[in-house]
Amino acid sequence: MKVALVGATGYGGVELIRLLHNHPVFELNAIYSHSKGGESIRSYYPHLTGAVELIMDDIDPEKIKAKSDLVFLAVPAGISRDWSKRLRDAGLKVVDLSGDFRLEDVEDYKKWYKKDPIAKEELEGVVFGLADIVKDEIRNATFISNPGCYPTASVLGLYPLAKEKMIVKNSIVIDAKSGVTGAGRGASVANLFSEIDENLKIYKVNTHQHTPEIEQQLNRWDPEIGMITFETHLIPMNRGIMATEYVDLKSPITAEELHKLYTETYKDVKFVRVRPLGEFPSTKEVQGSNYCDIGVSVNVRTGKAVIVSVIDNLVKGAAGQAIQNANIWTGLDEAAGLDLLPMYP
Amino acid sequence: MKVALVGATGYGGVELIRLLHNHPVFELNAIYSHSKGGESIRSYYPHLTGAVELIMDDIDPEKIKAKSDLVFLAVPAGISRDWSKRLRDAGLKVVDLSGDFRLEDVEDYKKWYKKDPIAKEELEGVVFGLADIVKDEIRNATFISNPGCYPTASVLGLYPLAKEKMIVKNSIVIDAKSGVTGAGRGASVANLFSEIDENLKIYKVNTHQHTPEIEQQLNRWDPEIGMITFETHLIPMNRGIMATEYVDLKSPITAEELHKLYTETYKDVKFVRVRPLGEFPSTKEVQGSNYCDIGVSVNVRTGKAVIVSVIDNLVKGAAGQAIQNANIWTGLDEAAGLDLLPMYP
Amino acid sequence: MKVALVGATGYGGVELIRLLHNHPVFELNAIYSHSKGGESIRSYYPHLTGAVELIMDDIDPEKIKAKSDLVFLAVPAGISRDWSKRLRDAGLKVVDLSGDFRLEDVEDYKKWYKKDPIAKEELEGVVFGLADIVKDEIRNATFISNPGCYPTASVLGLYPLAKEKMIVKNSIVIDAKSGVTGAGRGASVANLFSEIDENLKIYKVNTHQHTPEIEQQLNRWDPEIGMITFETHLIPMNRGIMATEYVDLKSPITAEELHKLYTETYKDVKFVRVRPLGEFPSTKEVQGSNYCDIGVSVNVRTGKAVIVSVIDNLVKGAAGQAIQNANIWTGLDEAAGLDLLPMYP
Amino acid sequence: MKVALVGATGYGGVELIRLLHNHPVFELNAIYSHSKGGESIRSYYPHLTGAVELIMDDIDPEKIKAKSDLVFLAVPAGISRDWSKRLRDAGLKVVDLSGDFRLEDVEDYKKWYKKDPIAKEELEGVVFGLADIVKDEIRNATFISNPGCYPTASVLGLYPLAKEKMIVKNSIVIDAKSGVTGAGRGASVANLFSEIDENLKIYKVNTHQHTPEIEQQLNRWDPEIGMITFETHLIPMNRGIMATEYVDLKSPITAEELHKLYTETYKDVKFVRVRPLGEFPSTKEVQGSNYCDIGVSVNVRTGKAVIVSVIDNLVKGAAGQAIQNANIWTGLDEAAGLDLLPMYP
Repeated sequence: MKVALVGATGYGGVELIRLLHNHPVFELNAIYSHSKGGESIRSYYPHLTGAVELIMDDIDPEKIKAKSDLVFLAVPAGISRDWSKRLRDAGLKVVDLSGDFRLEDVEDYKKWYKKDPIAKEELEGVVFGLADIVKDEIRNATFISNPGCYPTASVLGLYPLAKEKMIVKNSIVIDAKSGVTGAGRGASVANLFSEIDENLKIYKVNTHQHTPEIEQQLNRWDPEIGMITFETHLIPMNRGIMATEYVDLKSPITAEELHKLYTETYKDVKFVRVRPLGEFPSTKEVQGSNYCDIGVSVNVRTGKAVIVSVIDNLVKGAAGQAIQNANIWTGLDEAAGLDLLPMYP
Repeated sequence: MKVALVGATGYGGVELIRLLHNHPVFELNAIYSHSKGGESIRSYYPHLTGAVELIMDDIDPEKIKAKSDLVFLAVPAGISRDWSKRLRDAGLKVVDLSGDFRLEDVEDYKKWYKKDPIAKEELEGVVFGLADIVKDEIRNATFISNPGCYPTASVLGLYPLAKEKMIVKNSIVIDAKSGVTGAGRGASVANLFSEIDENLKIYKVNTHQHTPEIEQQLNRWDPEIGMITFETHLIPMNRGIMATEYVDLKSPITAEELHKLYTETYKDVKFVRVRPLGEFPSTKEVQGSNYCDIGVSVNVRTGKAVIVSVIDNLVKGAAGQAIQNANIWTGLDEAAGLDLLPMYP
Repeated sequence: MKVALVGATGYGGVELIRLLHNHPVFELNAIYSHSKGGESIRSYYPHLTGAVELIMDDIDPEKIKAKSDLVFLAVPAGISRDWSKRLRDAGLKVVDLSGDFRLEDVEDYKKWYKKDPIAKEELEGVVFGLADIVKDEIRNATFISNPGCYPTASVLGLYPLAKEKMIVKNSIVIDAKSGVTGAGRGASVANLFSEIDENLKIYKVNTHQHTPEIEQQLNRWDPEIGMITFETHLIPMNRGIMATEYVDLKSPITAEELHKLYTETYKDVKFVRVRPLGEFPSTKEVQGSNYCDIGVSVNVRTGKAVIVSVIDNLVKGAAGQAIQNANIWTGLDEAAGLDLLPMYP
Repeated sequence: MKVALVGATGYGGVELIRLLHNHPVFELNAIYSHSKGGESIRSYYPHLTGAVELIMDDIDPEKIKAKSDLVFLAVPAGISRDWSKRLRDAGLKVVDLSGDFRLEDVEDYKKWYKKDPIAKEELEGVVFGLADIVKDEIRNATFISNPGCYPTASVLGLYPLAKEKMIVKNSIVIDAKSGVTGAGRGASVANLFSEIDENLKIYKVNTHQHTPEIEQQLNRWDPEIGMITFETHLIPMNRGIMATEYVDLKSPITAEELHKLYTETYKDVKFVRVRPLGEFPSTKEVQGSNYCDIGVSVNVRTGKAVIVSVIDNLVKGAAGQAIQNANIWTGLDEAAGLDLLPMYP
């Protein structure tokens, strides 16, 4: 099956190229850029030399449709919305990696993204592709909105508690930490090596646009969950997200019970690995892979559940989950091309 | 004034050497080790070549007293307790950097440190040297127990709220992050570069021995604060601690009111810098300095106060605060030898 | 085809596990350890959770032979020698990743490794598996000694000049730089994160044991090359080797001519990529892949050729080349399981 | 003595602020910027909060002269030239940190900097301030051109051999490695954390503008030295330069003789530390300090001398040496404000 990539020069795009290179069914036969048509992807990423030497083409939905059946759309929020519509209209299956279609409430989009939202009717048939949880919905989607990196880690970390409606309203604190590739490849002083290395920053305090995305998902399973306190930190490393989640529970629970809930919930979910009780994952233990690893505990003194979930932000948090979504959507094994061990160390 | 250093080969010890090198009054004239007597400190730390070429001596309290008036004791918990007593008995002023004398409740020590506690009477006259807050106590101390690195950042971050008794019982979550020097210089696989670099770990989940130290201090100002949820993470950088504190408040407060509380509280405290409202400190902005920088916010949706406090764990979290304590204790300007700008970048 | 791994707990071993996981023909069905028999590999490497949960077994050549046809032997120099012999005697094909069989001159081994050499007759039939150059020899090997990481980068970087006999005797300077995984997983103060991070070290000045290995290979193609000056530096990163090679040439040459020599030499060599003239590779551009990338230049003012070659020390410098060797040896496509794009960033 | 800083927002500028903060005589009372007049330096560097809250002023030589006696000029090459003249004309002592006045041959400047050179007569009275070697010249200077970072490390590493005329013509290879602060604070994709971290790059192959600066200095002591082969690499760390120097000697020498030459040459030079024979410095061992540390060896097999010299590029390679120059020039102790131990780790 021929697939196309629109928006190849960001880190999410180039990670799609890496993963698709070993996909048994999908063949990436064309890449597109809205501003770099005519240039080779190699000139932006010399590591592709001799292996992927495609020339980027201007984005023309009809031409894309003539060559490919499915598109991975990896352009920024605000730009994705227009291309998405045109690509769908041209009859293409689209997996969109931006934030433009993730929020069901268009007012939320306006408030958190500070951009004009799409029309509500465009959200028709859009599935929020949290691939490890909503496989059936994905199979019937008309369009897939790939989840954000932080929401993927956070929601997978809290899903078992949410679906059991165990969480006290407004009590959730998510202290999230991310590697720097999450900030993209735009030139900026703030993300220079000399500014980030040997440094730890908090950013977008109380204003991160992934906040409503997480809330939307959790409230889907338990409308009593309400709002979350979500803070994000920049870690001096390339890849990886850790979400440390602090939750007040409606009723006391032992660590063993909590652990059992998680292992039961995820027992048939290939890409979510619940660690043995007492063990907690580190980000490098999922580096380069599509896994989300989870460790659970109960602080017996304060009664809070403390959950730790980690992903590679570029794989499970972007390109990997996008391919997993496309696999499910097109009837393939969800793990096609994704059965990779983490690269450690 | 002659001062001695006992326990020179750890990172806290060598940071004391760095800072004392430029102290206007204290002269470091002897260093001691319980196992490396006869060896030069240079052989452990070649960066001292030509500048500090002292030979370490065995620890003999009488001999130390003959040469020095004050001792910085930088040996591990469990070892410090015995030397402390002998050094005090020899008539020396002692600033102890270990955890042995920090907990007023000896049962807490036993539980969290998994070691036998000292006798309760040995805590007589011991002052917990949180130097920016308790200067008067320090002046009248007979022995100073230097605070831990995490407690320094955490307690300074929460002190204004605690002293005003604004915090809901058992509600505090401290998500703390530390550079790797906090783990010391012992050979271990877990702290190898290849294990830590490009990695983010949580460790000692719900069991970090600094938990009761933080609680003890906060409950001192408000016994209704109760217990905290305190988690610690290892960041791939050398120096720096950030504590992100999430607090439920008894009554709603605006960010402006919160900020005013902090700026008022710390307006005459040289080494605590409250950032302008909306600005949050990063760890490198205090690197190599004795500052604790704080940023404050209120999450208006959930009502939680979110406080961020950062320190250099080896300076304000260890050697710097120890010198600040010694300065105050001996009647010097508290900033003597510590008026250093952060090294950035 | 069933393959076994002996020595699984080092970084080279676990990288073999990662790469073999996606090999189309080789199936890793057993792993062995000389000291950790009975323990699970997962307990040493939690990133393998749920994916590779093999239990390590004691090394017993007969038992290994009963289960597997080919062994990757990833134990330290000095230990490998004995197991190699026993595994060969049991009828197994062995690809050895240690330095024990690389040096044809047993006196060199003694001098540089400071260990007793093997008997000269044990080197019979041993092929030094520089897989991109000596494929025919590999096909006819009775035992394969996998090249060292530095020699792989250095020799591939100099091979075109050596085979053309263009190099002035004793003139080669190789300034080599390596990531820290090359130092292995043994606990040591020198390799702690806090010692390595933000630091750059030179080590084993004039005494690195890879010196004679490089010389042996180069002199094979041109006995007039003589001796090299080879220095090694430790870079604060996990993976990657760069060798910067400075060479005096017997006759002047233009950069264009030099570049042509390299592109011609390597035009059919899949895993060696000569960059366009004026472009030089960085280590991350081969991270996680089996590529050796090369950039060439001539310093027109001094006449020296300056060559830059980079590899991932754990892939092309160890596990990847070992699999490439095994592929060739067993008649498979040399790229089986190795057609991976670099992981960037 | 009042001193001014022109060009405060680069890393060299802010390091001058750090070091001057503890200078016993120089008082930094004004800072200037050619484009940021009216803005506070704190807004660019929040780590200065509460300690250095100066407002940057537009550059007006007469106004500067009215407030200060000496200027540290830390603006880019090409911009420095014009301000230098105007500041000198206003009667100010100027220590210039740019490359504009370092090359005696204006054609060299044109060739390597790709900019128009200054008029030859403007070089009159300019002293190349290699502070550890040419103190007498500095005392009689009319203007001081502060050496580049790479030249400082490289020339100090080779000076003893050069002054003894022991070096074979055109034989020197300098393989230099630098931390990333050397690239400045300009926004660029190439210097983003995600591009640099876990990466090792060579750059400006055969074209680095410091090449003629090093040659000029070495040929000053021995005109037979000729040209050098100089390559530069970017190391994933903030600070530090290591120059590994490979030299053919006219006559054989033992390591002991070489070591003696170095220790004799530098025996009264406070800021150059020759390590004991067999020991080599790492960059972190001079971090934050004004030291240049040197290790020496002879490769007995090839006869080459291998010298290793390290500095902190922002201190000895920029701000520290600039202050050392100003100290000497104004008759102070050369170490005033610079007697700092390296910050380790």
